[in-house]
Amino acid sequence: MASASVVDSQLNEVATKVKQYHFPVESIPRLSYDDPEAERLIRNEEPVILTGTNLVASALQWSPEYLSNNIGHGTYTVYSSKNHKFLYYDDKKICKVPTFTPPTTHQDMTFQDFLNKVTEWKEGEPYNYLQQSLNDSVGPQIVQDFAAFNWKWISDERAKNNWGALTSNLLLVGMDGVVTPVHYDEQQNFFAQVHGFKRFLLFDPSMFGCLYPYPVFHPHDRQSQVDFDNPDFDRFPRLRELKGRQAILGPGDVLYLPVYWWHQVESVPGYGMTVSVNFWYKSGPTEKIVYPLKPHQKVAMMRNIEKMITEALNNPEEVPPLLQDMVLGRYT
Amino acid sequence: MASASVVDSQLNEVATKVKQYHFPVESIPRLSYDDPEAERLIRNEEPVILTGTNLVASALQWSPEYLSNNIGHGTYTVYSSKNHKFLYYDDKKICKVPTFTPPTTHQDMTFQDFLNKVTEWKEGEPYNYLQQSLNDSVGPQIVQDFAAFNWKWISDERAKNNWGALTSNLLLVGMDGVVTPVHYDEQQNFFAQVHGFKRFLLFDPSMFGCLYPYPVFHPHDRQSQVDFDNPDFDRFPRLRELKGRQAILGPGDVLYLPVYWWHQVESVPGYGMTVSVNFWYKSGPTEKIVYPLKPHQKVAMMRNIEKMITEALNNPEEVPPLLQDMVLGRYT
Ligand SMILES: [Zn+2]
Ligand SMILES: [Zn+2]
Repeated sequence: MASASVVDSQLNEVATKVKQYHFPVESIPRLSYDDPEAERLIRNEEPVILTGTNLVASALQWSPEYLSNNIGHGTYTVYSSKNHKFLYYDDKKICKVPTFTPPTTHQDMTFQDFLNKVTEWKEGEPYNYLQQSLNDSVGPQIVQDFAAFNWKWISDERAKNNWGALTSNLLLVGMDGVVTPVHYDEQQNFFAQVHGFKRFLLFDPSMFGCLYPYPVFHPHDRQSQVDFDNPDFDRFPRLRELKGRQAILGPGDVLYLPVYWWHQVESVPGYGMTVSVNFWYKSGPTEKIVYPLKPHQKVAMMRNIEKMITEALNNPEEVPPLLQDMVLGRYT
Repeated sequence: MASASVVDSQLNEVATKVKQYHFPVESIPRLSYDDPEAERLIRNEEPVILTGTNLVASALQWSPEYLSNNIGHGTYTVYSSKNHKFLYYDDKKICKVPTFTPPTTHQDMTFQDFLNKVTEWKEGEPYNYLQQSLNDSVGPQIVQDFAAFNWKWISDERAKNNWGALTSNLLLVGMDGVVTPVHYDEQQNFFAQVHGFKRFLLFDPSMFGCLYPYPVFHPHDRQSQVDFDNPDFDRFPRLRELKGRQAILGPGDVLYLPVYWWHQVESVPGYGMTVSVNFWYKSGPTEKIVYPLKPHQKVAMMRNIEKMITEALNNPEEVPPLLQDMVLGRYT
C-alpha cells in the first residue's frame, strides 16, 4: 500500500505537468480490478484504468537496463524519427500513394544497440522507439517473467467479454518524450505500463468526424490527419468540437483501451524512458444489430465502403472525385 | 420527301425559338436509321436522332383529337402541376422523407376528361400532363395502330445491342410548354415523337457531379436538384461546368436515349400539344469490367453504395452525417 501511494502521488504530479491541447479532457476512472464498476465499463466498451490486476507484476523490474541484460541478442524493430512523433504507416500500402514519404524509418537491431543509441542520444539526433512483438527468442529470465504474467486474470476477462484470440504482445520501449499520434486500432487492448509514465488521450468512436482519418487505402490508414501541436482548423473545422479523456499510467497500471477508440500515447517528458506491453485481442463476434447503430459500427461500415470503392475503381486517384460527386451538394 | 423537308424547316425554326440556359449545347446528330454511324453511336451508348425508322409511322395520325375519339373510355394517369414543370417523384419513397411535399398531384381520368381540361385551360390554372403505359384497354383502332409499329426494326436493334426485355411503352400527352426537369433513367430508351415538337437537353453520365441528384432514398431519386430556370451556383458550384447536347424532335423522329444519360424534356412553347411514345428496354448483362470504369458504371456503383448505407443505418436522417464524416476533410 505504501508503494501504491508513492505511485499515486507521482501520478498526481505528472498530471500537473502534461501538455494541454486545444480540447477539454475528462479523467478516465481509475478503479481496482475487482470493482464491479470496472467490469461494467469493460463490458460496455468504455475505457478504464485498472489497478491491482498483477497482470505484469512479474515484469515490474523490466527497466531498460534489466531488459538489456536479460533479453538476449535477438534483433528488435526500432523506429527512428527526426522529432518526438512516431506516426504509424503501413508498408504494404505505400505503393498505393506514389507521393508518400514515410515520416519514420525502422531497422532491426539488438536491444543493447538500441539502448546505447538512447543513452548516448544528444539533442538534434533522431528519436528512437523500440516496438516489437515478444517472441521466443528472448532470454530465459524474460521468458520466466513473461510466463508469470497474470494470464489467469486476463484469460478470464477475455472469456467474460466474449473476445477472440490474443493476437500479440507488443513490447514498447521509448525514449523520454516520444509520442504515438492519435489513431485507432481494430482490436481490443489491455495496455500494461511496466516502467515510467505514459499519458493517454482517448476519444470515443463518435469523434471520427472531428479527427479526419486518412483514407483507408493510405499508408496512414486509421491515423488522424490532425496534429494536436499544430491544429489546422481551416482544413479540419470540426476539430474544434473535439472532446477527450485522459489517462496517466504508472508502473503496474493496466488501461482497457476499447476497439475503435482513438488514442494518442505520450511518454511523459522529463520522466525518462518508458516500457509497456500491450495485449491485443480480436473483438467478439458481431453483436446483434440494434438500431441506431453504435458509432464504432458506423466506423466499421465506412471502412468497408472505402475499401469496396477503392477496390472497385482499381485506382486510388479516382476515389476522391467519386466520393465528392456522391456527397458534395447532395448530402452536405 | 416533300413532307420530310417541311418537318426539317419546322425543326430549324423551332431551334431558333427554344430557351437558352446558362450552359453551352451541341447538336445531337440526326441520321438515317440505316446510316452505319447511327449504329455505331447506339452501340457506344451515345445519343442519336434517327429518321426513317417508321417505328411509329402507323401512329402519325395520333393527334390528341384522334386519341380522344379512338382510345376508348379507360382511365389514364394525369399529372397536374401549378406551373409548367413536372418534377417526377416516387410515391413509394415518400415515407422516407417526412417533410416531403409532392410538387405535382396525379389522378386517373378518361382521355376525354383530360382533353377537355386542356382545351378549356386558362392562364393561372394547373398544367396537365398525361403519362400512362399503353395497355390492352385501348380501343380497336389504337390497338391496330400499335400493332403496326415497326416492331421488326426495334426488335432487331434490341438484339444487335444485346439489351434485355421491353419493359413498357409510355404514352405521353402534354400541354404546350410542359417540361420534365433534368433526370436520368435506369433503362435504355427509344423515344418516338408522334405529334408536335419536343426539345431534349442531354448530358452524359460523367456530368453527375455537376447535376447534384437527390439522395437515392429521396422520392426525387434520379432527379437533379438543379433548376435550369433559376440556377443556384452557390449551392451547386459545379453547375457552372455543365455542358449539354440538344435534340429537337418532330413527328416520326426517334431519339436513342442511352441509359444513365441525363435529360430534360420540353414541349416547345407555342407549338401546341405533344404526343410521344417511349420504348424502355432493360440494359444488357453487365459488361466485362475494363479499367478505368465508365462514368455510368460509377453512377451505378454510387447508387448501390447509397442504397447499402441507407439500408444498413435503417434511418435516412443518419445518412448525411455519416457520408459527411466519411468524406469531408478526408477526400475533399
Ligand atoms: Zn494504438
Ligand atoms: Zn426520363
